[in-house]
Amino acid sequence: VITEEEVPLGSLQREKLNQAPALLAQAGVDAWITFDSETAEGGDPVLPLLVDCAFTWQTVLLIAPSGRRLAIAGRYDAPLLEAEGNWDEIVPYDQSLREPLLQALERTIPPEKTSPRIAVNFSTSDDKSDGLSHGSYLLLEQYLQGTRFAGSLVSAEEIIGNLRSRKTPDEVARMRAAIAQTDRLFAEAAAFAVPDRSEAEIYRFVQERMDERRLGYSWDRRGDPIVNLGPESVIGHGLPSPTIRLRPGWILHLDLGVILDGYSSDMQRCWYRRRPAETAPPPEVLRGLQAVNGAIDAGARLLRPGIEGWQVDAAARAFVVAQGYPEYQHALGHQIGRLAHDGGALLGPRWERYGRTPTRPVQEGQVFTLELGVMAEGCGFIGIEEMVRVTRSGCEWLTERQREMWLL
Amino acid sequence: VITEEEVPLGSLQREKLNQAPALLAQAGVDAWITFDSETAEGGDPVLPLLVDCAFTWQTVLLIAPSGRRLAIAGRYDAPLLEAEGNWDEIVPYDQSLREPLLQALERTIPPEKTSPRIAVNFSTSDDKSDGLSHGSYLLLEQYLQGTRFAGSLVSAEEIIGNLRSRKTPDEVARMRAAIAQTDRLFAEAAAFAVPDRSEAEIYRFVQERMDERRLGYSWDRRGDPIVNLGPESVIGHGLPSPTIRLRPGWILHLDLGVILDGYSSDMQRCWYRRRPAETAPPPEVLRGLQAVNGAIDAGARLLRPGIEGWQVDAAARAFVVAQGYPEYQHALGHQIGRLAHDGGALLGPRWERYGRTPTRPVQEGQVFTLELGVMAEGCGFIGIEEMVRVTRSGCEWLTERQREMWLL
Repeated sequence: VITEEEVPLGSLQREKLNQAPALLAQAGVDAWITFDSETAEGGDPVLPLLVDCAFTWQTVLLIAPSGRRLAIAGRYDAPLLEAEGNWDEIVPYDQSLREPLLQALERTIPPEKTSPRIAVNFSTSDDKSDGLSHGSYLLLEQYLQGTRFAGSLVSAEEIIGNLRSRKTPDEVARMRAAIAQTDRLFAEAAAFAVPDRSEAEIYRFVQERMDERRLGYSWDRRGDPIVNLGPESVIGHGLPSPTIRLRPGWILHLDLGVILDGYSSDMQRCWYRRRPAETAPPPEVLRGLQAVNGAIDAGARLLRPGIEGWQVDAAARAFVVAQGYPEYQHALGHQIGRLAHDGGALLGPRWERYGRTPTRPVQEGQVFTLELGVMAEGCGFIGIEEMVRVTRSGCEWLTERQREMWLL
Repeated sequence: VITEEEVPLGSLQREKLNQAPALLAQAGVDAWITFDSETAEGGDPVLPLLVDCAFTWQTVLLIAPSGRRLAIAGRYDAPLLEAEGNWDEIVPYDQSLREPLLQALERTIPPEKTSPRIAVNFSTSDDKSDGLSHGSYLLLEQYLQGTRFAGSLVSAEEIIGNLRSRKTPDEVARMRAAIAQTDRLFAEAAAFAVPDRSEAEIYRFVQERMDERRLGYSWDRRGDPIVNLGPESVIGHGLPSPTIRLRPGWILHLDLGVILDGYSSDMQRCWYRRRPAETAPPPEVLRGLQAVNGAIDAGARLLRPGIEGWQVDAAARAFVVAQGYPEYQHALGHQIGRLAHDGGALLGPRWERYGRTPTRPVQEGQVFTLELGVMAEGCGFIGIEEMVRVTRSGCEWLTERQREMWLL
């Protein structure tokens, strides 16, 4: 297992920061400001792409279309930023960052610019672009009041969506490494599951292996992995049952995501536990897996730069419905990167809770999951989740696909 | 070391939720809504006081002045909330939470109420009460548009500040346990430091002990502990130096915070490394420690319910300046709880970056640090940080004070 210690300080952030000037130009903004206060308890989700540290005081990170990077940081936070070597100028402050902020904007945006546009991190559609708190937004407005920058705040949603989305080679390599760890855990969990382990036992087994290997959890630890055994299991993010035990004729379904070196996997696999003398799964299980994989194929065939995510989802959804199964109650695929749900363009239906993300055109360099499941009556949930990277003209599989039902 | 596993699911949250109705009544609001989307990467800092899990979809937690608690959660998140047993009603949704939200508000706020006040989590002063993102605020406004709840959103700053601040007996017990671990680490680090360890070596030594004991970091791991050796060390959150090594005649200063069972310590201690034949620290070191402790005493004497934090800070600040030292460039004390900086009322000067927090009256049950430092010329930084709990008429020390300079 690679450890974060071996990666030079700020190297990943340097790759991402180098992407920023083109994205600012494309969005037509005069500056992009990330403004956050104490970040130890989480902070703006864009921060890990920009800096390799957390802050104790309010901090402004200002990026100009020229590529110039300026930080205004509390006196005691500034040395951490210095150490990363990615910032052209670091202005330390003690009492207020209003003055240094206004001075920085003065220097960045020429006075002849009549209606400046300053991008800040809010979005009603994409929570990964929505790291600016409402109170901080109000504060920024107060700071700019009475200056030529009043009323200039616009959403950085497009910039952040693109910055997160367009994975660099280093980011893709890290995800491939996370996938390899996930495959290994799947194999170990399946071997452990027979003859009759409970959902809770399998869940603990996988978590113990993850902790030993210092792997992180791609989503809330309480629901990672999701373990489903048979037809009565709670599908979704339910807690694993201590009393439901694997039985012949049932499906074992796992949904597992690990984080390695800051990047995530998110995969679903399933196994069929044979009845005595059975040599193959029953027809309803085969039919279910074919419907799921057929839907994934239908989506993947459409996935390429320029298409809107709802079209990809609709193709998969239509396929599985045509096979006689109910619609899945989620999106076919989400972007994945630092976390399982990496925000931005979504391969999902145009439902209200997805905001505008299903109509954003897909771009080269994005990494998506493709996932859905169906119930096989009496046997359990057949769910498959793969990961793909969008190429110039289509997509490539990052995961080795599960084409057949694995037998236990 | 107690582990989180032994604590019953949702028990701490139950204590905190029981505090809420009185706080809502005091704030004069008709409902308090916490609204958050995917929370695995942090989320609203108030969430750990309300729920023992993270969410994958947008979630609404609605608390009424009656004490009734209602959650609207994504279909797959709802079972996690069910398991905690703290919510009177859990409404699962698939596509949009607008309708269930409006229905819940209809049931909670009587129709005769003409100007309802719905508290939501934003604040320009207190980042721990500012967990609502700006995009989520705009979404909520959209949801309420055209209903009788339009324009009813107000800040939940007072509710959250009080909820976080007023520590329950369980919370105080957890902090005392974290303090005991911190004392132990201080003793071990001091023994390790002689004769001539570097800042970086001492830092790594402490972190290895913390990791072994599965203790968390009260602030960014990169700066916890802060290690300062002698007069040339970078004071604040600088990285520990691999080349600055302890020498006779120097001060070793540590600022360390650990998290145990979800609650934090934050303490500073210092030691003087004797020169050959020296039996006591030189006068400037003794004078420095007296100035620091005298300032802490001056603040603690004033600390009691009803006083405003800036008055406590001003007494300490005046004392240390009267002793001929420069003003410290931070607050005398901050509240501590789940993190070192727990938000709400601050014992600090009325500087712009502190917002309104220094003028909030102190309340019984709050836990504060009292901390400052001075330079002893040629010897290094003398910093002390204690923790106190506000009682009915004054305050009690949670830490065992460092009254004398410890010798190495």
